[in-house]
Amino acid sequence: MERLATYLGYLIDLETSQVETISSTEVEKQTGINAAQFRKDLSYFGEFGKPGVGYNVVDLQNRIARILKIDRDQPVIVLGAGNLGSALVGYPGLREQRFHIVGVFDANEQKIGRRVWELTVRDIRHLREVNAQLMARIAIIAVPASAAQAVAEEAIAAGARALLNFAPIILKVPDRIVVRNVSFLQELAVLSYHLSTDTRK
Amino acid sequence: MERLATYLGYLIDLETSQVETISSTEVEKQTGINAAQFRKDLSYFGEFGKPGVGYNVVDLQNRIARILKIDRDQPVIVLGAGNLGSALVGYPGLREQRFHIVGVFDANEQKIGRRVWELTVRDIRHLREVNAQLMARIAIIAVPASAAQAVAEEAIAAGARALLNFAPIILKVPDRIVVRNVSFLQELAVLSYHLSTDTRK
Repeated sequence: MERLATYLGYLIDLETSQVETISSTEVEKQTGINAAQFRKDLSYFGEFGKPGVGYNVVDLQNRIARILKIDRDQPVIVLGAGNLGSALVGYPGLREQRFHIVGVFDANEQKIGRRVWELTVRDIRHLREVNAQLMARIAIIAVPASAAQAVAEEAIAAGARALLNFAPIILKVPDRIVVRNVSFLQELAVLSYHLSTDTRK
Repeated sequence: MERLATYLGYLIDLETSQVETISSTEVEKQTGINAAQFRKDLSYFGEFGKPGVGYNVVDLQNRIARILKIDRDQPVIVLGAGNLGSALVGYPGLREQRFHIVGVFDANEQKIGRRVWELTVRDIRHLREVNAQLMARIAIIAVPASAAQAVAEEAIAAGARALLNFAPIILKVPDRIVVRNVSFLQELAVLSYHLSTDTRK
């Protein structure tokens, strides 16, 4: 099922790239997802690409969103209004797609009250009261490593159940909380490894 | 081998979190990497955690970096000096670790010449000449989706062999080029899926 969610994100990116149809072979080439696995996962839900044409990107996207029950809008809050937080608030995919960023928070007096795209930065000390209204269950952690654990705990206390963590630390959270880490270092390490094998060829 | 690169990024994050030792059970809990797989992968290289103590984070990190031949500094260029590009240039893990951001480029006249942390934004039209000196083979694409394909092609023409793509599109590149996509949408889709299963429990 987690693979399906990955497919969904990929299909949204394809739609942004104005790709209308995609074959499982192209999927494998572009993402590393195994073509046979992709076909098998989708056939399980009664989805079959047309031979010689492939899958319709928008149809498949809507279908997977329904299967995963994420076809409704999902409110998201961003914690940290620095460069990264601001980039996320303005990220076109997020603004137009199923995930709506409904609030951005910071602890820095100089950032509180500033506009970031169409949002105003709020004081993170008011997170609990504000999120009682916003009802976001997904929080993006975009603060420095030194603040990330405390901010994650605040987010959970304010009702977040899923955290997308950009800080380069490993968060300690209760078992019921889902965390995904975006680690630039991991990505660069993988690329670097591929470069080193390339040289050895 | 790609798993080892992922371990490396994770170990660097653990070091930033000031964790000194880690057991394979903790690894599984924090990252979802299977504990048995982790132990097996490392035992293959003669690394065994001490019973009841685990693995030394720094030792293991250095060891994996040597195995992957990424123990030397790797120069990296950032294409796009917007919020995301600026966040990456200042990302503490990157500044202090094995990946050195040596250049940041943009096409926008208003950004060219500006300081971003310790770097000055350069004109992306000079990418080829400048990278002939910088010799970066890893390029981070942090431009809007509409510019990403053209910028990726410029990066490859300037000698990049590995691309870390933050734009929400699927890049078309020659087979010899390695691409990793950081898709915020994929991450949010996975979190959203976990939330929906949580509700059904």
